[in-house]
Amino acid sequence: MANQQIRLAKRPEGLPNAATWRLEEHPVPHPAEGQILVRQQYISLDPAMRGWLRDQKSYIPPVAIDDVMRAGGVGEVVTSHHPDFKEGDFVTGWGGVQQYVISDGKGWHKVDPRLAPLPVYLGTLGMPGLTAYFGLLRIGALQEGETVVVSGGAGAVGSVVGQIAKIKNCHVVGIAGGPRKCAYIQEELGFDAAIDYKNENIYKRLKETCPEGIDVYFDNVGGDILDTALTQLRRGARIPICGAISQYNATGKIQGPSNYMSLLVNRARMEGFVVMDFAREYADALTEMGGWLASGHLKTQEDIYEGIENFNETLLRLFSGDKFGKLVLKI
Amino acid sequence: MANQQIRLAKRPEGLPNAATWRLEEHPVPHPAEGQILVRQQYISLDPAMRGWLRDQKSYIPPVAIDDVMRAGGVGEVVTSHHPDFKEGDFVTGWGGVQQYVISDGKGWHKVDPRLAPLPVYLGTLGMPGLTAYFGLLRIGALQEGETVVVSGGAGAVGSVVGQIAKIKNCHVVGIAGGPRKCAYIQEELGFDAAIDYKNENIYKRLKETCPEGIDVYFDNVGGDILDTALTQLRRGARIPICGAISQYNATGKIQGPSNYMSLLVNRARMEGFVVMDFAREYADALTEMGGWLASGHLKTQEDIYEGIENFNETLLRLFSGDKFGKLVLKI
Repeated sequence: MANQQIRLAKRPEGLPNAATWRLEEHPVPHPAEGQILVRQQYISLDPAMRGWLRDQKSYIPPVAIDDVMRAGGVGEVVTSHHPDFKEGDFVTGWGGVQQYVISDGKGWHKVDPRLAPLPVYLGTLGMPGLTAYFGLLRIGALQEGETVVVSGGAGAVGSVVGQIAKIKNCHVVGIAGGPRKCAYIQEELGFDAAIDYKNENIYKRLKETCPEGIDVYFDNVGGDILDTALTQLRRGARIPICGAISQYNATGKIQGPSNYMSLLVNRARMEGFVVMDFAREYADALTEMGGWLASGHLKTQEDIYEGIENFNETLLRLFSGDKFGKLVLKI
Repeated sequence: MANQQIRLAKRPEGLPNAATWRLEEHPVPHPAEGQILVRQQYISLDPAMRGWLRDQKSYIPPVAIDDVMRAGGVGEVVTSHHPDFKEGDFVTGWGGVQQYVISDGKGWHKVDPRLAPLPVYLGTLGMPGLTAYFGLLRIGALQEGETVVVSGGAGAVGSVVGQIAKIKNCHVVGIAGGPRKCAYIQEELGFDAAIDYKNENIYKRLKETCPEGIDVYFDNVGGDILDTALTQLRRGARIPICGAISQYNATGKIQGPSNYMSLLVNRARMEGFVVMDFAREYADALTEMGGWLASGHLKTQEDIYEGIENFNETLLRLFSGDKFGKLVLKI
């Protein structure tokens, strides 16, 4: 039995490409006392991965050259020498881009495939969902009835941001790429409006859809969209900075928000966060989100591709926007 | 008796110049019942003035073409038909760039010239001092013992920011232009270090003077200095956005902070504010600051020029940095 793995071969300039990675096969390892062996079925592809490839100080160390690429995964315990896990348990954790992983159990949590299909635990009930939850409610300090705009609105994080804002009786506008995604977030997810950044004038459409201005702008993309949203802030607005996917593959200086002085005029704030800081509250948040999922208030959409050998080309879909919902790789 | 006034003749592109203004002479007006007539002795020249000239939505309306230029002033009540003021009272308020002003008393406050010379009420005990106080303590949420960096460190706001931070036992680094200002903030005001942005490498010097990173970066200048400070944030840092004087006369797009994703990595926030929002707390703040002034913990420096006809050339000193302390015009 072999364990296929994707390792980092060299750091990319700009977009990752085939030469960035090396596919290796190793024997499946044997867990020692106190360890478990997990066979991962799905791994999560996330924009943050691009940041982990950069050799610079960040909120976690970069992936080292020759290491297995970091990724969240979900799968089944196939051997357990650990008192808290038994064979057949389904679990999620930082398994990396590989089929089998050994762990002492730290950072791994059991999931229930009867409540939701496994890939959901990488999206709406995983890191992206938690990122939406804490970013909107804590950093965004959302109040009932406010106007919320979210970029990447059809994505794993943005789709949950918008739905939670609807649960909180807010006016919600999603920014997404293309008519299909825009129709989806309005018709399926119940957003009040959608802006197609590939085909519409964002400035004009923000003025139309948020006539009284924006209370919370949840930013996943940076660049021109952030800069335009800054022009439409309402007094006391909050901007949780979750990501800047439009800038992650920039080889030069990244584009700073030229309109940031709107923060002064509107007494507004822009604040960064890292979901892992809320780890002690994950369980409560997941209970609440699980309830919304069960009651149909929260819908989830995964876009699943297959084959560990397709890791790079699947990852690139994040940056081209050519995917629909949470991007997952079945390995 | 004539009342000389500076009125806005046309909106400037880039730096204001002689054609921006018109000096007019009108008869001194007569106050009606419920009004006072104030003879202004000093008016305050502030970076915010540049923003008031721009024809766009902001925290207050722009100065209209042909209107008297907005400015804070301090002077003496020469006629009073108002129960709260008597002739000979010294008062401060939004008098505009003119020698005489009529008011119903709203927004005018009495000051005591025995406690501090009149120009101090336009600086350390006026809007700039209040801006420093609320920006640092409220928006900056300063904690004892933190590391504080302030740009425009020798200016009317920055010099007070640094001194309050020293009163709160913080490690304080000021950024200022030229050796004279740098010597002043260290030797006279007690800052722990100074960075001469005109002659030193700001990045290197921030690393040297803030080896553990910055907890509060109080920004008066924007541009490259803001961008460099962002690279040195400590986890949980706060950036009160007070101004962006380096960008106020830009004719193209203003320079956004390219390193803003440091907010995410460091879970930091950047927040704008307008001092007028704290108006109800001015009196308490001024009492506290008056105490620090009396005890010698807070020092004040005014740079006073003379003649209303020199308004434009004196104003330009704000943007060239060719002034020392709070810029005031005696009219």
